[in-house]
Amino acid sequence: MQIDLNSDLGEGYGPWAMGDDRAMLDLVTSANVACGGHASDPDTMFETLTLAAERGVVIGAHPGYPDRTGFGRRVIPMAPAEISRMVAAQVGALQALAALARAQVRYVKPHGALGNLAADDRPVADAIVDAVRVLPGELAILAISGSELELAGRDAGLRVYSEVFADRAYLPNGRLVPRSREGAVLHDPEAISERLIRFLATGNMPLPDGGGIALAADSICVHGDTPGAVDMARRIRERLAGAGILLKPFVQGRGRLT
Amino acid sequence: MQIDLNSDLGEGYGPWAMGDDRAMLDLVTSANVACGGHASDPDTMFETLTLAAERGVVIGAHPGYPDRTGFGRRVIPMAPAEISRMVAAQVGALQALAALARAQVRYVKPHGALGNLAADDRPVADAIVDAVRVLPGELAILAISGSELELAGRDAGLRVYSEVFADRAYLPNGRLVPRSREGAVLHDPEAISERLIRFLATGNMPLPDGGGIALAADSICVHGDTPGAVDMARRIRERLAGAGILLKPFVQGRGRLT
Amino acid sequence: MQIDLNSDLGEGYGPWAMGDDRAMLDLVTSANVACGGHASDPDTMFETLTLAAERGVVIGAHPGYPDRTGFGRRVIPMAPAEISRMVAAQVGALQALAALARAQVRYVKPHGALGNLAADDRPVADAIVDAVRVLPGELAILAISGSELELAGRDAGLRVYSEVFADRAYLPNGRLVPRSREGAVLHDPEAISERLIRFLATGNMPLPDGGGIALAADSICVHGDTPGAVDMARRIRERLAGAGILLKPFVQGRGRLT
Amino acid sequence: MQIDLNSDLGEGYGPWAMGDDRAMLDLVTSANVACGGHASDPDTMFETLTLAAERGVVIGAHPGYPDRTGFGRRVIPMAPAEISRMVAAQVGALQALAALARAQVRYVKPHGALGNLAADDRPVADAIVDAVRVLPGELAILAISGSELELAGRDAGLRVYSEVFADRAYLPNGRLVPRSREGAVLHDPEAISERLIRFLATGNMPLPDGGGIALAADSICVHGDTPGAVDMARRIRERLAGAGILLKPFVQGRGRLT
Repeated sequence: MQIDLNSDLGEGYGPWAMGDDRAMLDLVTSANVACGGHASDPDTMFETLTLAAERGVVIGAHPGYPDRTGFGRRVIPMAPAEISRMVAAQVGALQALAALARAQVRYVKPHGALGNLAADDRPVADAIVDAVRVLPGELAILAISGSELELAGRDAGLRVYSEVFADRAYLPNGRLVPRSREGAVLHDPEAISERLIRFLATGNMPLPDGGGIALAADSICVHGDTPGAVDMARRIRERLAGAGILLKPFVQGRGRLT
Repeated sequence: MQIDLNSDLGEGYGPWAMGDDRAMLDLVTSANVACGGHASDPDTMFETLTLAAERGVVIGAHPGYPDRTGFGRRVIPMAPAEISRMVAAQVGALQALAALARAQVRYVKPHGALGNLAADDRPVADAIVDAVRVLPGELAILAISGSELELAGRDAGLRVYSEVFADRAYLPNGRLVPRSREGAVLHDPEAISERLIRFLATGNMPLPDGGGIALAADSICVHGDTPGAVDMARRIRERLAGAGILLKPFVQGRGRLT
Repeated sequence: MQIDLNSDLGEGYGPWAMGDDRAMLDLVTSANVACGGHASDPDTMFETLTLAAERGVVIGAHPGYPDRTGFGRRVIPMAPAEISRMVAAQVGALQALAALARAQVRYVKPHGALGNLAADDRPVADAIVDAVRVLPGELAILAISGSELELAGRDAGLRVYSEVFADRAYLPNGRLVPRSREGAVLHDPEAISERLIRFLATGNMPLPDGGGIALAADSICVHGDTPGAVDMARRIRERLAGAGILLKPFVQGRGRLT
Repeated sequence: MQIDLNSDLGEGYGPWAMGDDRAMLDLVTSANVACGGHASDPDTMFETLTLAAERGVVIGAHPGYPDRTGFGRRVIPMAPAEISRMVAAQVGALQALAALARAQVRYVKPHGALGNLAADDRPVADAIVDAVRVLPGELAILAISGSELELAGRDAGLRVYSEVFADRAYLPNGRLVPRSREGAVLHDPEAISERLIRFLATGNMPLPDGGGIALAADSICVHGDTPGAVDMARRIRERLAGAGILLKPFVQGRGRLT
């Protein structure tokens, strides 16, 4: 049994840091690297790409709404064609910096409000796919399991991988319990790890009220910017390893160009 | 005899326009397209690329300091490595939008204060070249004739083309008369055209006080954003054609992908 | 009979202009000056304030969502308390620049999507009022006639003035015909002027299908940034004057400090 | 004997934090609050003002170059008149948010590269003073001891207070040892405290190679954003108290409006 561990990284900006990227990059197998939209700048992008490549962590582009004060968590009203252009510009910038860092971008995962919208809104999902498919590098898509983005990517002939969230409770329809509800976010590393192990063994994600929902997953998303994020990721890693689950990138290539 | 005519275009931003890009794109053979640094945004970049490609105008990237209120005309203190990353990010963004517009970026010309600095400061010139050489697309450099950037690009094995300015007076050392001095900028389309025709016939750029300076040039830069810019470019084009000079891109490929 | 004529001005940004502010400032009696949110910067604000004060045009602050590429026409999701802080920061910046220009800000009119939201959404209207009431200078509110902002301002004890739009068709409920519908925007200066004269004489705004709706208005809003804006404003001014209507600021103080 | 302790605070931006403002606000007597130029945004400004006012910490405005990626540490080329407008806009925004937070801005201290330039360049110092003097609130100036800003403020009739740096070595001419030189920054809290106690007792700031330089100081600046900043400030506070030195704001009013 094997699974990928991904996290949103490189989300500093200028003088400001967000989380402990170095520590997280020692723990994950794939890094979603911010592209200058909701976070980051060319120097932060370059540094994150370099650190990821040094560790052999697979690199994904993590485009988001160009809204730093909102950290990409607010929907900025944009037409699908505008979303395609925004995504293209951000991923293209990251690819260019990857060339400078002798690294390679292997996939695209939309951030925050853009990712959530692309899970439910097919035109938005198609807009993202329209950008990804024209870019060089045979980019894959990393999408929320069961999302419209997953379908849009597959319909366009792209390689699509899906993710589940380590610390979020699921609804019977496979969607996340909204953050506003109690129990939406799990906090105990042991309970989180046990849920993941059961999910990986059965393909059924346990639900809060019992039972489970069948989900496909190539990767588990762990947070990089919350207090305790590093300890949480480390413990999940240990527990999965202890259960005989191999942590391996869903995209098999390495970040670093030889 | 042949020469290229280039202009800085796509320098609007969001709701704001700068000059008449459509009219200028009917007159020039190469367009230096802003990349979101000193001007532009993904939608403006896409539109400019589309308009250029439709007309078969060759497309260059025109990166500048990330300083919109200063329009890239102020030197922002940056280390050479920071300049490489900034240039890579901007050119990469434009290349991605070109992929979306089914166009192609063929060269890079630094804008404003960055271009001026790269003319005299070798480490800055090298920093730009360091970014250009790692990017895909076999990008050429368009540099000020006689500049450090020209030398840096050639030393790195890049194709380098050089430009002269249609409306700027030259010093005996081949540099421009500073804008602060009287006579630095020429205004009469006929005098400008005659000077260019003499220069193209002889390889010697006439000087304000008589005599001339030998300059190499593959392209003539005309302004796109000043009042009367379109009329000036049109008149220069007519006069050069009347003198039997063919207007032809220095890069022979077309902007549009077939 | 008298009325005020207002227009959104000072909406350039850095090197970019928007409309012909000087010409418009010779025609209007009140200027809504952008505050660095949807448009403008300290230099543009200072210049607009200076030009308005020189002409005795009354100055209002025109805060908008901090979204330059969207020009304040997109709703950026913000909590009411965030809106209060945004409005306070923008109006405070304009007031400080007015102090430097020896001018005075007399009222506040929210821009674009913020103004539209404040017309229908009471908590947003209250958030704007919460900012305006704590600022110095006894600022008035300029609100869309019949809007929630009008009510919110009055409930808070502020002086509130209301406006109608010169070139927008009205619905029987006093709201604007949405721009997406045919006939939403009027284009003929003579028809526009005649409608305004009838409205000012009767207090009833003529409707597209006949009849009218009673509206209170202290000011007429004319566009400053559309092609033909200056000619339109000039013609309206002439026609109103010809009908014996005095153009006079709703706020009786002058922009310039003595 | 008494002295003020000031620190640069409120330097987060959107989702990003910088240092531990709450802890620092329990230790300092004056807070230099960022104004949205080199750092901060309306929500961060409001929160910092509220926290300062709750603790009775005196509030100063801390304007800086509008350069977030450079954190205001790079000189952005600007004419003096542009600097006046930038400072006015930033301080005005903070004053408006202070009105919303029921707090009051009592002084202005320029940040980073702007502060350094104003120490040596009289036209820049005058430009800052030109903005401060027209703003309401009888704002004082907090300047580097011995700087041009100190002279410019006094010449304009403003109240001017001066500061020394807790952890920076001084040259015999009263300027700071450049950061590039060894020994420029002091790290040991005990040595730092002893130097300050000696300085406050004698008026002579001890020099690295022995001897001292006479400096006037109303305040000591401690860093808020470096690792160990809180511990350093706490230890300095303890040691000064132990030496019988009273920590008291140089401006005697409180931050909070009653």
